[in-house]
Amino acid sequence: MKIFTFDTTLRDGTQGEAVSFSVEDKLMIAHKLDELGIDYIEGGWPGSNPKDKEFFVRVRDLRLKHAKITAFGSTRFARNPVDRDPNVRALIEAHTPVISIFGKSWDLHTKRALGISEEENLKLISETVRFLKDHGKEVVYDAEHFFDGWLSNPDFAMRTLEAAKTSGADVLCLCDTNGGTITGRLEEIVAEVRKRFDGVLGIHCHNDSDVAVANTVAAVEQGVTHVQGCMNGYGERCGNANLCSVIANLELKLGHTAVGPENLPKLSHVSRFIAELANLPLRNDQPYVGHSAFAHKGGVHVSAVLRDAATYEHVRPETIGNRQRVLLSDLSGRGNILFKLKQHGLGELTDEARRELLDRIKHLEYLGYELEAAEGTFELLVREALRPGVHLFEALGYEVTTRMTGGKETVTAATVTIKAQDGVHSATAHGHGPVNALDLCLRQCLSSLYPEIAKVRLTDYKVRVLEPKKGTAAKVRVLVEWTDHRRSWSTVGVSENVIEASWRALVDALRLELMRITEKDSSVERVVEDYCWGV
Amino acid sequence: MKIFTFDTTLRDGTQGEAVSFSVEDKLMIAHKLDELGIDYIEGGWPGSNPKDKEFFVRVRDLRLKHAKITAFGSTRFARNPVDRDPNVRALIEAHTPVISIFGKSWDLHTKRALGISEEENLKLISETVRFLKDHGKEVVYDAEHFFDGWLSNPDFAMRTLEAAKTSGADVLCLCDTNGGTITGRLEEIVAEVRKRFDGVLGIHCHNDSDVAVANTVAAVEQGVTHVQGCMNGYGERCGNANLCSVIANLELKLGHTAVGPENLPKLSHVSRFIAELANLPLRNDQPYVGHSAFAHKGGVHVSAVLRDAATYEHVRPETIGNRQRVLLSDLSGRGNILFKLKQHGLGELTDEARRELLDRIKHLEYLGYELEAAEGTFELLVREALRPGVHLFEALGYEVTTRMTGGKETVTAATVTIKAQDGVHSATAHGHGPVNALDLCLRQCLSSLYPEIAKVRLTDYKVRVLEPKKGTAAKVRVLVEWTDHRRSWSTVGVSENVIEASWRALVDALRLELMRITEKDSSVERVVEDYCWGV
Repeated sequence: MKIFTFDTTLRDGTQGEAVSFSVEDKLMIAHKLDELGIDYIEGGWPGSNPKDKEFFVRVRDLRLKHAKITAFGSTRFARNPVDRDPNVRALIEAHTPVISIFGKSWDLHTKRALGISEEENLKLISETVRFLKDHGKEVVYDAEHFFDGWLSNPDFAMRTLEAAKTSGADVLCLCDTNGGTITGRLEEIVAEVRKRFDGVLGIHCHNDSDVAVANTVAAVEQGVTHVQGCMNGYGERCGNANLCSVIANLELKLGHTAVGPENLPKLSHVSRFIAELANLPLRNDQPYVGHSAFAHKGGVHVSAVLRDAATYEHVRPETIGNRQRVLLSDLSGRGNILFKLKQHGLGELTDEARRELLDRIKHLEYLGYELEAAEGTFELLVREALRPGVHLFEALGYEVTTRMTGGKETVTAATVTIKAQDGVHSATAHGHGPVNALDLCLRQCLSSLYPEIAKVRLTDYKVRVLEPKKGTAAKVRVLVEWTDHRRSWSTVGVSENVIEASWRALVDALRLELMRITEKDSSVERVVEDYCWGV
Repeated sequence: MKIFTFDTTLRDGTQGEAVSFSVEDKLMIAHKLDELGIDYIEGGWPGSNPKDKEFFVRVRDLRLKHAKITAFGSTRFARNPVDRDPNVRALIEAHTPVISIFGKSWDLHTKRALGISEEENLKLISETVRFLKDHGKEVVYDAEHFFDGWLSNPDFAMRTLEAAKTSGADVLCLCDTNGGTITGRLEEIVAEVRKRFDGVLGIHCHNDSDVAVANTVAAVEQGVTHVQGCMNGYGERCGNANLCSVIANLELKLGHTAVGPENLPKLSHVSRFIAELANLPLRNDQPYVGHSAFAHKGGVHVSAVLRDAATYEHVRPETIGNRQRVLLSDLSGRGNILFKLKQHGLGELTDEARRELLDRIKHLEYLGYELEAAEGTFELLVREALRPGVHLFEALGYEVTTRMTGGKETVTAATVTIKAQDGVHSATAHGHGPVNALDLCLRQCLSSLYPEIAKVRLTDYKVRVLEPKKGTAAKVRVLVEWTDHRRSWSTVGVSENVIEASWRALVDALRLELMRITEKDSSVERVVEDYCWGV
């Protein structure tokens, strides 16, 4: 059966802590969601802020193939006639084919939050829906707090739906706004509503009880055909139902059509793209689309999976655009590096080179390197093993000083000396900080020989203490993420000295980029891409 | 009804990517889980690695109040008699009161992974359970892949349970090992098993379909009374059922007793403690225990919640040791600081001092400080507002240089000059890195006047980039954790320069300690403890 998908990443998603999108971000996300085959994209609340207003103007220029842009708002304010309510007017002025409005279903809220009678609340609902219908809109009616409302006063909750329905609402969407409803209870209530109303019922769940996805799927099993949620489960407090998981479950577990099997393999990519724009790391353990979702670590699991993936994988990872991984830190994982290298026709690696590669990996892990998270460093190791003797440059020395004087100003200066193929280069630079200063010097040294190096830039920088008990003398691990605008990678450095650890990650990142530039053997890219999932 | 909790954070949890605990970590976690009132703590697989073996030796010295330590393993290997199977022997030698063993329920696995007949598999199960029972152990039988097995061949799956049951297994635990079972299906299968078997049934769910918590709760609604899971949902691939959420749902939504209402308020603390040891940031949006779980951002929500928390909170946050937050970035949040200060009798703060405190907080937040995570810095601000004009020392200048020569050795040296009450002090020191060198200098300067300062030490150091788009010139936030062996706190520094940001966090940490040493007003400690959630 066709289940309609309603994405609210751009509206409810931005109510999550630390989630924030610019108008450009929102437009790019809308475009991706459309490509994924999402039916409705809720773009924001035009009555609430200028950013959302601008989005609705600019989104009209976006040529969407399939999705309908939706504006979100509330029923009219009690004190305003519907045609003079600024919020309702902003909805009309957003010029979207679809409008979603929320109204109160919970008697407590009607009294406490709005301070009006139940009858008056019914009027707000019916008049607003009718007004929007008269303007030719498709109307999704969001029954806020429906489940709490139903438990408090089922008759009143049902009458609010009735009011929306008889006024022409196209979808009655039941919202578990506080996310407090357990699956069994939610199923019963949805079934009661289904008995009373035909037409399209929707569901909108929050994850405060950690059951939002299960609730959404259970509601579909009770006859709901419109599902709301956010990509990656963003949203107020604990987030909304994770639409990635909902879509995959509906398609792969219940045999419904949500975005369709032709679009499903885009799911992992779209999820990661949105996480990038949100500037939030994608949870590794995110079901279906996370980097660990099909990653095997336990020895028993690894050996079984290599024989038959179905033994420890519930679906084929390719169906949602994800992939199997075997983790490096495990002993079986090391055997697997060899397996993978061979499988991809990298037989040219001599036995000795292979042994050396393994020894280097072992040694680095022993020192505290975490290659699982730093596929750039791993790629560099593989490339160096494949091209033994190739040293594009050698760092001879560096010095970096940070000085604060007069209780105020901070100045950082660095000097770097390297030996490249055309001789020794030195450079001096001031920087915003030591890593910046070293980075500037190093590029300056390399740029005459390799102008492409200018494109590489750092996108994230993280430091962890490995042995906290030693205080400021502890060993630190620096993980740095890089991009050359075409692809991203991360490198790692470990040292007792945070400057030295950063330096190592910096040198490896540039060395890797140069290795790539100076060699065009795509088989290396294949094995590395297959093995190491990009950042 | 009493529902038994079985925590496998130390076993299945460590199969999660990037989750790794030392033996010391494991012992500390076992202690915390015991305090929380967990019934069973699965400590590891003694047959699989030396670290787990050591844990089972050392855990005997831990005086646990309530929890039973459990060793994990598998049914005997097909080729070994049970009394000579090394894995089974290691289980006995772990000297735990409880043993959990997994056996195959899925005909496909019996054939593919073990390569034995169904009858032979039944023998492995019954002989191993019987052997462990003969050694006086409580036996939890984990029916691996039970749900997949049941769908493939229900008769065979049931016979494996029968074999364990008739051999004396105390708990029959149904495992959704691949995490692929949807809630409705899982409920039906559990109900079928319940019809056939009395006694204690257990459930062990993985989260590959994003429904592990819902499945666990649904299983309890079908008569299961033993629930397995991991704190924070760690575990292989997408993790296990998040035991924090399961416990809270059972206690607060279904009225069962899991850890008991007296222990429930420890839940958030234990969850965060374990996340710290795992060195994984606790997900802000983690249901119940996450920092955002009761954090309100949307304007409509904030104003309603300040009037009546039930309008947008499904349970009272204190019941699980969490708290309501109005996000500081929101305007209401600032009003709330004042509210809290007043509430705790800090009326002695003059209007002017209060305004100044607010202005400083506003300004620091604008600069990128995150006071939510740095209660040390917040405490310092409050103490400074209460004692205006008290300046224990002033930093006049510092210089720190890191030098690498000859492609190898790294040397770091620093000089610091401060002005204290007894005059100007200077110190020079070599360090393992710049923060270490600055720390040594600063203490040296202060130690003649304040010998107690020697006790303070750094326990963790984290760096985040605030504006990734600027590359290595981006602003960074340094978060540092400290202890004086009596209490822990964290301080934050923000700058474009990682050295300067670290320096600020360092100076604030020592300044705070001196403030505490030189003043004994406990009301400040109260307000700060109430306001700032401990690390």
